[in-house]
Amino acid sequence: MGTITLIERDSRQSHNIKRGDLFHVPAGITVYLTNTDNNERLVLANILHSVSVPGDLQFFSVGGGDPESSFYNAFSHEVIEAAFNVDRESAQKLIGQRKQQQDVFKKATKEQIRSLAGEDKGRLWPFGDRKETTRHTSIYKNKPSVANENGILHEVDSKDFPDLQDINVAVSFFNITRGSMAGPFYNTKATQVLMILNGVGRFEMACPHLSEQTTRTRTGEINPRYEQVSSELRHGTVVVIPVGHPVVIEASGEQNLEVIGFGLNSDENEWFPLAGRENVLSQWEDEALELTFGFPAQEVKRVIQKQNQKLFFKGPARRGRASG
Amino acid sequence: MGTITLIERDSRQSHNIKRGDLFHVPAGITVYLTNTDNNERLVLANILHSVSVPGDLQFFSVGGGDPESSFYNAFSHEVIEAAFNVDRESAQKLIGQRKQQQDVFKKATKEQIRSLAGEDKGRLWPFGDRKETTRHTSIYKNKPSVANENGILHEVDSKDFPDLQDINVAVSFFNITRGSMAGPFYNTKATQVLMILNGVGRFEMACPHLSEQTTRTRTGEINPRYEQVSSELRHGTVVVIPVGHPVVIEASGEQNLEVIGFGLNSDENEWFPLAGRENVLSQWEDEALELTFGFPAQEVKRVIQKQNQKLFFKGPARRGRASG
Amino acid sequence: MGTITLIERDSRQSHNIKRGDLFHVPAGITVYLTNTDNNERLVLANILHSVSVPGDLQFFSVGGGDPESSFYNAFSHEVIEAAFNVDRESAQKLIGQRKQQQDVFKKATKEQIRSLAGEDKGRLWPFGDRKETTRHTSIYKNKPSVANENGILHEVDSKDFPDLQDINVAVSFFNITRGSMAGPFYNTKATQVLMILNGVGRFEMACPHLSEQTTRTRTGEINPRYEQVSSELRHGTVVVIPVGHPVVIEASGEQNLEVIGFGLNSDENEWFPLAGRENVLSQWEDEALELTFGFPAQEVKRVIQKQNQKLFFKGPARRGRASG
Repeated sequence: MGTITLIERDSRQSHNIKRGDLFHVPAGITVYLTNTDNNERLVLANILHSVSVPGDLQFFSVGGGDPESSFYNAFSHEVIEAAFNVDRESAQKLIGQRKQQQDVFKKATKEQIRSLAGEDKGRLWPFGDRKETTRHTSIYKNKPSVANENGILHEVDSKDFPDLQDINVAVSFFNITRGSMAGPFYNTKATQVLMILNGVGRFEMACPHLSEQTTRTRTGEINPRYEQVSSELRHGTVVVIPVGHPVVIEASGEQNLEVIGFGLNSDENEWFPLAGRENVLSQWEDEALELTFGFPAQEVKRVIQKQNQKLFFKGPARRGRASG
Repeated sequence: MGTITLIERDSRQSHNIKRGDLFHVPAGITVYLTNTDNNERLVLANILHSVSVPGDLQFFSVGGGDPESSFYNAFSHEVIEAAFNVDRESAQKLIGQRKQQQDVFKKATKEQIRSLAGEDKGRLWPFGDRKETTRHTSIYKNKPSVANENGILHEVDSKDFPDLQDINVAVSFFNITRGSMAGPFYNTKATQVLMILNGVGRFEMACPHLSEQTTRTRTGEINPRYEQVSSELRHGTVVVIPVGHPVVIEASGEQNLEVIGFGLNSDENEWFPLAGRENVLSQWEDEALELTFGFPAQEVKRVIQKQNQKLFFKGPARRGRASG
Repeated sequence: MGTITLIERDSRQSHNIKRGDLFHVPAGITVYLTNTDNNERLVLANILHSVSVPGDLQFFSVGGGDPESSFYNAFSHEVIEAAFNVDRESAQKLIGQRKQQQDVFKKATKEQIRSLAGEDKGRLWPFGDRKETTRHTSIYKNKPSVANENGILHEVDSKDFPDLQDINVAVSFFNITRGSMAGPFYNTKATQVLMILNGVGRFEMACPHLSEQTTRTRTGEINPRYEQVSSELRHGTVVVIPVGHPVVIEASGEQNLEVIGFGLNSDENEWFPLAGRENVLSQWEDEALELTFGFPAQEVKRVIQKQNQKLFFKGPARRGRASG
């Protein structure tokens, strides 16, 4: 389907890409990608982690063709000629003559594709002279964390893929059955960035930020108020879930909803369900339930123990048709 | 005196609280507290550590009774009914009907208190199926770092209580004898937040920030100037000591002064005394003392070696009556 | 040439200083320096690492002589007298009477110098009662990372000098032969601060920040533009190289250029050459070269493989006279 090549100071690593593959591209190394398929689009979801000023990212390109798109072009002619030990004419070849404006994306010939997708992919160059650093894994590496008729969750964190440790990121992949939903749940430490890959759906989040009705009680304590943030979801929608915020992700009745999630600041993060099995309420003592909800504990427990699925539930659409 | 309950995804941990206990409540887990004493007030000093945006803290409450105080209320009816797999009437029980505004603090019956303070406290639920994480210790765990007739210092850091490592916090407890004082001393790495628990006193700090008289010498070097920041201290006073700032904490002549201190960014922090035993000056070479103070080293040493106590000294009030 | 003394809570460490020595002075500890040479100036390059608010540094001085320059002077008379357990007259000796304004630099007598530079230097006081912490190394500790006729690079990082680990700093020293140059190269993770110690030269950097011509291509991708940032270099010039930015450092034809570099945020940093041996381009596959530069790979490789030196090359000045 495609290839990725990572170039480090003393090695070159190339891999054939397949669905679910995860790659860690450290800051400062050269990377290039090929779509080797004639028909299918190659889609990648990137999370970029700035190494210096947060949010400030710079791309450095050797350009080619168009001199203005090459950082070599920023140096004096004399310096470039000295660095490469060549005359001006040869240096110009590298920096390029002004031609038509070039895209970051370039069309390769069939021969070039064939060569780039060649049989030595997945191997390291130069061969054998250094320990292979992995730099890649698959979201399907582990058994699913949760799997039932309503959905499947795959997760990869730094224990599974040590490259994630440096950047403190975890990756998850939700495949929510049509008409079903994930959550409500929340993350204890991580901010989660979701991106919809396939399907259509809806997102609801409880948010204390928006409320202007937060009031103080007689004893001066803050009594928080929550409002709903919601959004339609479709291919390419990006959703940011701040830490601690309860969310529900719903698939439409028409097709499964595929969502990739990047957990930022994920060290020691856990997600806690707020309904169904392993619901945080299910461990409260009877007295705490009574004092909080103002009903006998047995009645509260009847409600919170009814749902026996974990994380993924029949959604409103599907429930109408189901026995649930 | 009280109980605390911490609820994690797959365990519940309850403890009876006694004076000096320290608890680590990780972000995102549920916690509730009971005062089991009929007469005495339960006082807790909290240091809150934000996991995402510094200084931005959000409380998430399941509420109960008052629907607006529950984050469940931010979700659509259909979503909540699907999540709990119940009808609207049952869901309403959980989210609650609007009743009188509820406090975060709730009055429990004697029976509820008795049950919450029951004999299985200090144990973990469910019993036996996972390694107990500590999550608690006592400020009295170690022998005092310093103890003399003028005061006692207890300290707990991440070596004593590994939970403190993640949040890079250390805890200290000063009990300063009436009429005595602690310091001058300074912290090498940590910013320290003090809170007065009992007693009355006074606080002095040397602060270079306030000085507008900082001048440059002939050689262009900055010659710092210091001004005094001072405050009366009483129950509930909070004082922030920036890293490196020399401070003195004085107890009034009437009663002991009890102070809890949270050291933020405490990794590799040390406190250095600026008078008395282990005073930083006491290790200077004679030539350095002479060049700095402009007097023969022997004279300087006579002054800096006179005080032979460590950290806690007779304060101005008590000295008048003492032989010192 | 000089001495440095570091005073910690329970030890004093003194060292004779020689060219290339590196010292780690942790925040909050007392330090003093002596130039023991009658004629030569003692030059130190410092990188200051703030422990609390980034960029906010405070110096705390016991002063001496001038009362306003001592932080002891910020405390009440009564507090200082109690702390040192002395009468007012003795306390005044410590805080000092107002005399002429004092410099941070003080002139020592020959006897004081002789004593401070005495034979017990390099030893720890008090002797034998604690494990020696190193706190120092030399930039010349390791063999040079690169050495050819055009220059020498020495590097020390946290693997060589564990004290650097806490502050995430690496140190490098470039000695560039007159008429030669270092680079183009870039750092993958670190921001580098250069300071010129000796010689005269020139600095060029490719910078995407300054470009207002960054345009979007037909496909909506950002096509970066680079401009040159350049500077004359002489004794005391400080240059900041943001992470990822390609740079060239050129020595004039008259004398060698000596440059000290502090790499900030240096964990896992590598520098990658952009010309000559181990050039990042030299590992690209033929198809990638062709697609980028728009010329047959063989022609591109003829240019990028011509230079066979590593990092240090003959500069424009020297090339005119050389056979290169």
